[in-house]
Amino acid sequence: MLTYKNLDQTRAYHRLLETRPFDVTSLTAERVETCQTPLAAGLTLSWAAAPLEEKTLDILEELAQEQQLLEKYRALAEGERMNTGENRLVLHHLLRGQLGAEVILEGRNQREFYLEQQNRFNAFAQSVRDGSRKGSTGKPFTTVVQIGIGGSDLGPRALYLALADWVRAHRAESEPLLEARFISNVDPDDAAAVLADIDFERTLFVLVSKSGTTQETLTNEQFVAELAARRAPGLDLKKHTVAVTSETSPMAHNGGYLESFFIDDYIGGRYSATSAVGGVILGIAFGPRIFQRLLDGAHQADRAALEPDIRKNAALLDALLGLYERNVLAMAATAVLPYSQALSRFPAHLQQLDMESNGKRVNRHGEALNYQTGPLVFGEPGTNGQHSFYQLLHQGTTPVPLQFIGFRDSQQGQDTTFEGSTSQTKLKANLAAQIVAFAKGRAHENPNKHFPGGRPSTLIVGEQLTPEALGALLAHYENKVMFQGLAWNLNSFDQEGVQLGKMLTTELLTGSPGAELQAFARLLGVNAG
Amino acid sequence: MLTYKNLDQTRAYHRLLETRPFDVTSLTAERVETCQTPLAAGLTLSWAAAPLEEKTLDILEELAQEQQLLEKYRALAEGERMNTGENRLVLHHLLRGQLGAEVILEGRNQREFYLEQQNRFNAFAQSVRDGSRKGSTGKPFTTVVQIGIGGSDLGPRALYLALADWVRAHRAESEPLLEARFISNVDPDDAAAVLADIDFERTLFVLVSKSGTTQETLTNEQFVAELAARRAPGLDLKKHTVAVTSETSPMAHNGGYLESFFIDDYIGGRYSATSAVGGVILGIAFGPRIFQRLLDGAHQADRAALEPDIRKNAALLDALLGLYERNVLAMAATAVLPYSQALSRFPAHLQQLDMESNGKRVNRHGEALNYQTGPLVFGEPGTNGQHSFYQLLHQGTTPVPLQFIGFRDSQQGQDTTFEGSTSQTKLKANLAAQIVAFAKGRAHENPNKHFPGGRPSTLIVGEQLTPEALGALLAHYENKVMFQGLAWNLNSFDQEGVQLGKMLTTELLTGSPGAELQAFARLLGVNAG
Repeated sequence: MLTYKNLDQTRAYHRLLETRPFDVTSLTAERVETCQTPLAAGLTLSWAAAPLEEKTLDILEELAQEQQLLEKYRALAEGERMNTGENRLVLHHLLRGQLGAEVILEGRNQREFYLEQQNRFNAFAQSVRDGSRKGSTGKPFTTVVQIGIGGSDLGPRALYLALADWVRAHRAESEPLLEARFISNVDPDDAAAVLADIDFERTLFVLVSKSGTTQETLTNEQFVAELAARRAPGLDLKKHTVAVTSETSPMAHNGGYLESFFIDDYIGGRYSATSAVGGVILGIAFGPRIFQRLLDGAHQADRAALEPDIRKNAALLDALLGLYERNVLAMAATAVLPYSQALSRFPAHLQQLDMESNGKRVNRHGEALNYQTGPLVFGEPGTNGQHSFYQLLHQGTTPVPLQFIGFRDSQQGQDTTFEGSTSQTKLKANLAAQIVAFAKGRAHENPNKHFPGGRPSTLIVGEQLTPEALGALLAHYENKVMFQGLAWNLNSFDQEGVQLGKMLTTELLTGSPGAELQAFARLLGVNAG
Repeated sequence: MLTYKNLDQTRAYHRLLETRPFDVTSLTAERVETCQTPLAAGLTLSWAAAPLEEKTLDILEELAQEQQLLEKYRALAEGERMNTGENRLVLHHLLRGQLGAEVILEGRNQREFYLEQQNRFNAFAQSVRDGSRKGSTGKPFTTVVQIGIGGSDLGPRALYLALADWVRAHRAESEPLLEARFISNVDPDDAAAVLADIDFERTLFVLVSKSGTTQETLTNEQFVAELAARRAPGLDLKKHTVAVTSETSPMAHNGGYLESFFIDDYIGGRYSATSAVGGVILGIAFGPRIFQRLLDGAHQADRAALEPDIRKNAALLDALLGLYERNVLAMAATAVLPYSQALSRFPAHLQQLDMESNGKRVNRHGEALNYQTGPLVFGEPGTNGQHSFYQLLHQGTTPVPLQFIGFRDSQQGQDTTFEGSTSQTKLKANLAAQIVAFAKGRAHENPNKHFPGGRPSTLIVGEQLTPEALGALLAHYENKVMFQGLAWNLNSFDQEGVQLGKMLTTELLTGSPGAELQAFARLLGVNAG
């Protein structure tokens, strides 16, 4: 029997408020060696530099039990309508594998439905890659352009950038290299720039909108159509376009696209990277086998998150650590700092995943909450960030918990030895040094050169950023955010906060906007009917 | 006579603490029309949705007087050693023009020195662009690659991305289009990816390090050299490389680069985009005249920031508004939200500019401060962010002041009309709608659909993102950060917080690291001597 209560109605929360954090200036080598939790796909979560005492961990595990986090995760995976506001199931785990009982909805086995779509888009991707499917003027496709925004953009884009160079370095020579690009913004300069040098005859477009009504995406579809008509007048653009949408959307059976691949209401946008939303473009660019390896890594992380012992469940531990930092230590933000250039846009994906899921002020029943929920999330790759905003993180007045990510090997294996060490060794040495510098600080008689330390962090470390590792990383954060939302007793799967802006935009463009909206429209030169 | 005191030693600060913010849910059209301050180069700062009452503005102006912000700005521009920790002048304004008395240092007129360097790199850029200067195998240059990190990367990269499409759309047909790329990270995957398809014979490298000792940059220089030796064995790479450095650095008169262009200790990295650090690559990619237009816009903003009336000085007003939000309203972060895809990396530049300048815990004399200083800065372009992290901004538990940027016209002039409005009109309508949605909110009986409003913002609006507008925007934020640092009585121009990480990295790679650092190094597989 699942019961739902707010965080501040749990006994464990009030006990947590009485704890003292581990003072990370006391970080020891022994702690580094013992405070490690396997994540999945060869990844490990090191929480040596996190502000967690053993006793705190025990209370966090009690909190997990009191809030029934694992039971709720299982229930979610088995079809509980966990998206309360929209009365929907939450089934993105099924995209990667079967975690528990089968989910049958109106006679349909959901896992089989997702697999059927996956088989369809895999076959399609293969036909594009082997050249058996060509453009309308008979030329093979060399470029694939995704048109989508939010979850239809950030996750797939982050994954593409994360693997493009690994694939280039590891592919068989017989495997083709297709380039992927992304158009997202309604700013016409975005589409114009992405398409400036495109060869329409060799380009396939993937139009992604679950509802089939996303303003930006439909506008950009038309932008592409008009440009194609001018630049490649003989082209049949519909034969260069596939749709990813829900079966009930206006985009589904309309317009004669080459193919339509389906998701449904149980795959939230920010949780959709492992559905057709990511699978079509990644399958075309990298091949279905690479995408399958990514799914395998994600499924491994999903399974690992079922472990009840908090010390052995990286997603659960990471989630409750974040809650501890937010609600007990009153830290309002968290930084994601991957020491891997390939993860350059992964923080932007996590920013959406986390802030859109848990940036809420009401609980799952719509009642106001009396405690802080999701943090601000930002980040850039190291070592770049070290030469930028780390100054504030080290010596500013707002402590920010840090989430480092690093790998023992580079993706491409190219390197140079300079002053006795390779680039990869320098990269890792910098990462190790930063964790210790943030945690322990260093005394100095000159206050301007004094480092107070006490800045907590975690580290996710792996051998290499492979498809499996990336899949596990993606799912780890999805599950972390899910556990946090459940602990806060909120709905991590709706996004009512995006609605008012849409309504006011419509009022301005087609209706009767308020006076202050009209005034801003005048200032911006909005000429609307 | 300049005097220096902490913020909490001013009378105005204590009066500020007694004020009540303007309740932005009461935003009116009249306020939109009246609360505007010209910035420069056709830009306007709208602060209608900022939490500023008239009375508060009066007190902020008193604070500016009490902290002598304009006098200190003038003194800085005229050569005061405002970088106290390093005992250095702060002269980036002189890169754009002469603001006050000439600065003569050891017999050298600093403005003339910067102009001399500018003339040198302009002539060089012109010779690359007109093809009179060729690579060592006789081919013209088509690509320029900057190797630099931090301020040698983020600012120039943000400016390049901001203008590349504008230049493409507006250039004369006789003007060549050169592509710029950037290598920054010590991660070898960064250089490998940027160079994967490079034609070394047609590529010019710009090596940027003020000290000439930046680990990442020297390592990447060698990475490039080894790859060039393998891929283009006949090439004389030194004839494909220019340096941007200080005259006293090991890079200045060493190695036989094609040319060396100089900055000096009075141009901080994050303030160097208008020096040779940005000027060489932008001059080569866009032509010196475009770079000059950017400098002109920056100089206009620098002059506008000399205005004593806070209601007419956008940089001063923006700075003190930020201080009010930070120290009186206790808001820890601020988001930069450009409604312009071309500004995609401008928030990353501002993140460095602001967080590295004002993320400090001691005053300019090295004494601990008792109040909050620089905020966390993050941001992504709209409308993309609307489909991502705006959920938290609208309905989360942490209010974040928002800095919107928008333009009446797109950069490239390509557009489409869909459902009765153009893309650009939709972009601007969304921007106007968001400001009003954040400010005023909207009541709803369902708490999950209720928008509390009261989220403050400002808007910088202009006709188009031209070189002048971009220069003004860049300088506006530099001056805003400067005024804030002066008001907080801290040194915005050093960055001691980057040192400990460097020291520990060196200890790990070449010295005797502590046990916990060794333990992390083992976890990461660091094999160092």
